[in-house]
Amino acid sequence: MNTKQNDPANREVSKPTLRRLPVYLNYLKTQAALGKKTISATAVAAALGLNEVQVRKDLSAASKSGGRPKTGYNIVRLMADLEDFLGYRSTKEAILVGVGQLGSSLLSFSGFEACGMRIAAAFDNDPNKIGTEISGIRIYNIQDLPYICKLIHVHIGIITTKPDQAQNVCNTMLDGGIRAIWNFSTAHLETPENVIVHNENLAVSLAMISHDLEAMLQQEEGKDDTQ
Amino acid sequence: MNTKQNDPANREVSKPTLRRLPVYLNYLKTQAALGKKTISATAVAAALGLNEVQVRKDLSAASKSGGRPKTGYNIVRLMADLEDFLGYRSTKEAILVGVGQLGSSLLSFSGFEACGMRIAAAFDNDPNKIGTEISGIRIYNIQDLPYICKLIHVHIGIITTKPDQAQNVCNTMLDGGIRAIWNFSTAHLETPENVIVHNENLAVSLAMISHDLEAMLQQEEGKDDTQ
Repeated sequence: MNTKQNDPANREVSKPTLRRLPVYLNYLKTQAALGKKTISATAVAAALGLNEVQVRKDLSAASKSGGRPKTGYNIVRLMADLEDFLGYRSTKEAILVGVGQLGSSLLSFSGFEACGMRIAAAFDNDPNKIGTEISGIRIYNIQDLPYICKLIHVHIGIITTKPDQAQNVCNTMLDGGIRAIWNFSTAHLETPENVIVHNENLAVSLAMISHDLEAMLQQEEGKDDTQ
Repeated sequence: MNTKQNDPANREVSKPTLRRLPVYLNYLKTQAALGKKTISATAVAAALGLNEVQVRKDLSAASKSGGRPKTGYNIVRLMADLEDFLGYRSTKEAILVGVGQLGSSLLSFSGFEACGMRIAAAFDNDPNKIGTEISGIRIYNIQDLPYICKLIHVHIGIITTKPDQAQNVCNTMLDGGIRAIWNFSTAHLETPENVIVHNENLAVSLAMISHDLEAMLQQEEGKDDTQ
């Protein structure tokens, strides 16, 4: 059993910190792959373009190992702490609905297991897909969803359908006891308050990139004009 | 030509606001599809679980149309203003490197054009893929990347390779004049300061979902214990 200290839900951590932790982990993996044994908060901050104080604070929220004054953090130990904190070592099951191109690509994506998630079953309404498998994951009839969800006590549902089907699928998932929805469709979903919805919206990323790029190019044009 | 007022880079807007604007647009689309003509900031705030004052502030940063005291915003006009502000009406070109499952799925994704992005060319090192097309987008030899990039003056590069190839691809992109990198690989990329990197990291989303779900389920267990 987990001790209270290792239980993510028992530790207060802000959303921005939570967003940065997998980024630290990722960076530590590249450093470990290069053969490095220890790393300082200063080096992490410089590599990721973050504030050093912020990095120390973030890491101390997730890890009790601590950095030593001269050598810094033990990389392997820090990675293990981050993985524990992020729940990567306790597998959570999920189901996926909508086995189109994006759905198939998520079913074959090998990166989820490293993050402690396993897609246990997939669903579609296409008779040609029902009964087949992708990367060992069986595709069931969408009508069987509530029964299968209850059977395996799964809490996370991934929606990769077309936008016009997403709300119906969401409702079916809630009937099956799903409590957290990872929405890859562009549809806005209506859900009760006790359900978590995380929208994976590529339009949001694109808006950020376009805005930053435009601002940067304009600033450079402005500089050229005055030189 | 754009007036200064319609130019995104000339208007100051915070990252959180920028993140919410496509979400408003999305919600407005669903309301327009239901036949609604006008909507109040109160209704938008309630539907998206946001603060009403925040919604008014966000919308006024992107739109000069303004809401009327009794009827609220004209939905069609507000949508047009948001699309203008987000740059969805001026097409930006991008290139993509790594035509695996995720890469192919992005090449076929029809949603980018609505956000003003067009993938002009794709690249891979697999001889079986080079010279073929996906959704009308031609796949070129990765070695031709710097030449083709300069030919079409493209600024955005999408990386969908395996993590161990990502840094090399990134360097090649920079040689070709790419200034903004949309990184779908899990690799940490080293870039000069005048390059924008946006990491599309599913592990970050998953960490957020897991954490929120865990916290919610534990809170409910706690409630059950005391009842």
